[in-house]
Amino acid sequence: MTQIEAARAGKLTAEMRQVAREEGVSPEFIRKGICRGHIVIPKNSISRISKVCGIGEGLRTKINANIGTSRGSSGLRQEIKKMNAAVELGSDTVMDLSTGADIARTRRAIISKSKVPVGTVPIYEIAINGMTKHGSIKKISVDEMFGVLEDQASDGVDFFTIHAGVVKSALETLRKKPRILDIVSRGGAFIAQWMMENDAENPFYTHFDRVIEIAKKYDITLSLGDGLRPGAIADATDSAQVLELLALGELQQKALKKGVQVMIEGPGHLPLHHIEMNVALEKACCNGAPFYVLGPLVTDIAPGYDHITAAIGGALAGAKGADFLCYVTPSEHLRLPTVEDVMEGVIAAKIAAHAADIAKGVKNAINWDNMISRARKARDWKRQFELAIDKVRPTRYRKSSRPDMQDVCTMCGEYCSIKTAERCFGKAVS
Amino acid sequence: MTQIEAARAGKLTAEMRQVAREEGVSPEFIRKGICRGHIVIPKNSISRISKVCGIGEGLRTKINANIGTSRGSSGLRQEIKKMNAAVELGSDTVMDLSTGADIARTRRAIISKSKVPVGTVPIYEIAINGMTKHGSIKKISVDEMFGVLEDQASDGVDFFTIHAGVVKSALETLRKKPRILDIVSRGGAFIAQWMMENDAENPFYTHFDRVIEIAKKYDITLSLGDGLRPGAIADATDSAQVLELLALGELQQKALKKGVQVMIEGPGHLPLHHIEMNVALEKACCNGAPFYVLGPLVTDIAPGYDHITAAIGGALAGAKGADFLCYVTPSEHLRLPTVEDVMEGVIAAKIAAHAADIAKGVKNAINWDNMISRARKARDWKRQFELAIDKVRPTRYRKSSRPDMQDVCTMCGEYCSIKTAERCFGKAVS
Repeated sequence: MTQIEAARAGKLTAEMRQVAREEGVSPEFIRKGICRGHIVIPKNSISRISKVCGIGEGLRTKINANIGTSRGSSGLRQEIKKMNAAVELGSDTVMDLSTGADIARTRRAIISKSKVPVGTVPIYEIAINGMTKHGSIKKISVDEMFGVLEDQASDGVDFFTIHAGVVKSALETLRKKPRILDIVSRGGAFIAQWMMENDAENPFYTHFDRVIEIAKKYDITLSLGDGLRPGAIADATDSAQVLELLALGELQQKALKKGVQVMIEGPGHLPLHHIEMNVALEKACCNGAPFYVLGPLVTDIAPGYDHITAAIGGALAGAKGADFLCYVTPSEHLRLPTVEDVMEGVIAAKIAAHAADIAKGVKNAINWDNMISRARKARDWKRQFELAIDKVRPTRYRKSSRPDMQDVCTMCGEYCSIKTAERCFGKAVS
Repeated sequence: MTQIEAARAGKLTAEMRQVAREEGVSPEFIRKGICRGHIVIPKNSISRISKVCGIGEGLRTKINANIGTSRGSSGLRQEIKKMNAAVELGSDTVMDLSTGADIARTRRAIISKSKVPVGTVPIYEIAINGMTKHGSIKKISVDEMFGVLEDQASDGVDFFTIHAGVVKSALETLRKKPRILDIVSRGGAFIAQWMMENDAENPFYTHFDRVIEIAKKYDITLSLGDGLRPGAIADATDSAQVLELLALGELQQKALKKGVQVMIEGPGHLPLHHIEMNVALEKACCNGAPFYVLGPLVTDIAPGYDHITAAIGGALAGAKGADFLCYVTPSEHLRLPTVEDVMEGVIAAKIAAHAADIAKGVKNAINWDNMISRARKARDWKRQFELAIDKVRPTRYRKSSRPDMQDVCTMCGEYCSIKTAERCFGKAVS
């Protein structure tokens, strides 16, 4: 039984109860959300992860960290380090996007060591193994494609990205209305190349029943990928993007009917004034399915700082109803991230998700802020840093710049506004 | 003649023309905006700054960097370094918030070396010199206060923050409806202490005519300070904050009538869902005066990363109509910022301002994004980095992680989506 089948039968699974406890909502709330397809719990039925999470309506905004090797850069040990750092800092899931040596072995190692749900993008393994075997993408057979999906599913992948919405009509539109950056999704580009070289429809669209079948067997959550997401502000919310979204909404209904959990991936590069509309559009076209956004990055001008451009977009998207934020590291557009980049990316995404949760009215979200602000009022630096999203940096900053008086900082020194105000209003606060 | 008086007389000043050129709008547009009090050009009539700027309706969102010594930390040379770094990276103005040794000498040195408008917060010098002289804030006389304003004005300060809205009724409200953090504004706390110890109304409110007189003599732009801004998410948009804003709107009208330029300072710590409303509230209560926001910081949980929490808030505030963003550095709440912190703060604020400008529809703002995205499409790394908001970090990142092929990066290597898409859609883009 998949989570949806259980939910429909009125059964509360262990995972539903765990998510309900975690979120401070009733198990019944989770069950109903799963029934409707508004909440997913990405967990392969053979998976042994210890920290499941719910993603969707009424729940805390979750974040994902991408890890994975690339050819000639990094290796398994380094990527495991990144995974551990990301999870330690609060990443709710990780995605293994490896394209380096021995993709299958890397994935199995990551799955075996992960406490949190692991996602993948099977088209990477399909394309890379296929090119090695046949010398071209074109010759990869549909059976080979689904063989990889089956392999990854049986390895215990909890959710996977399927770019089933990169349909012929959307590519045709892209050709007629060119973008600055046509396709920036690695998976989307592979699929498009296969389709164009074979003059064929997207095999994941045509054979979506086979996708559903594999997903159902293992209760894998489908993350319907946005292969045509805009990669430049000028390309945002164009016809190709919207056509793909419409196709994803159609496929989401098919999967949901068969008892398979689905979330929808979203942009990408979006100007600030497109964000609320894009969230509403996804909810409308995809029947309230959880929205998993990749950023969004609100400007193209800041390579080296795209964790910030994405935190801006992610916070607003989350506040307006996006459910799941994919982190972006400072290395985006530049290189495979280092461990430090991963940490910066997770922190920025977590700031965005938490800011969104306050705005969304997620139960008790603001308590965290209140505790830290009370410690700030008390000039209790130790407690403030213990509560902070990251303890290391504030501790280091404070050590580097010690004031004469222990209870203030070097910004204001003896003229600390909090101390001055205390003389006026006293210490205690109700 | 002040800018407003000239504007009212139908005269286009050199500064109006310079701002119009810079913004790509007509000088008449600037003149009308100044007449209405919707645009300010902060420039002391004796000032010789080379880069004037316009702040307000229909113009590019500007950013400010705070510099200045504090007792026992940093000195003039260090602060000049910070100023130069901030201006180099695109800060439109700087504020000298020095509270260390010899405030007047520091200010004069900064003014003499600055290319951009310099702002100050005179109450710092008033309080610190006063405490040195009298041993307490209480004994500072009103004449001493205005003496400092006159000194700073004649030194050539271009705009100054006056916390004239910290009125008795607002403090009474604060006492009745306590906050987690009563007052986090250093200037606001000084004024409140003086008022409470003397059981007197705010002298800048009572004697606002004297403020106007000095400002008018030098055409200094008044930045009416938010001494009661919320310093914790839980305190956002409370009665004290709104009462102060109402007082500021009243004073703005008085100053405008007399031909003195005014902008209004705003929060502070605000949850995301309060930001649009706070901008609209300021515009309504303060008659469309330019809004100068300090952040806003959208969560309290991230000491060490408050350039990010502020970039999120600043971008949204700007998109919704805020005109001027005060940067926040990663050191906020922790220490006097280092030169590197200043640089990070300016970059984050500039990202926020630019993202806001795209959303606001500021003329040609998106051209910058388009140029860099075209360079990205062409994998022209040199050009991309030349165009980037900061050249240094992306160059360093790329150097640290060289791919086998020169035209890709180590994220995707040979599987670069842009190259794959090029095989499908070709190189040229219309």
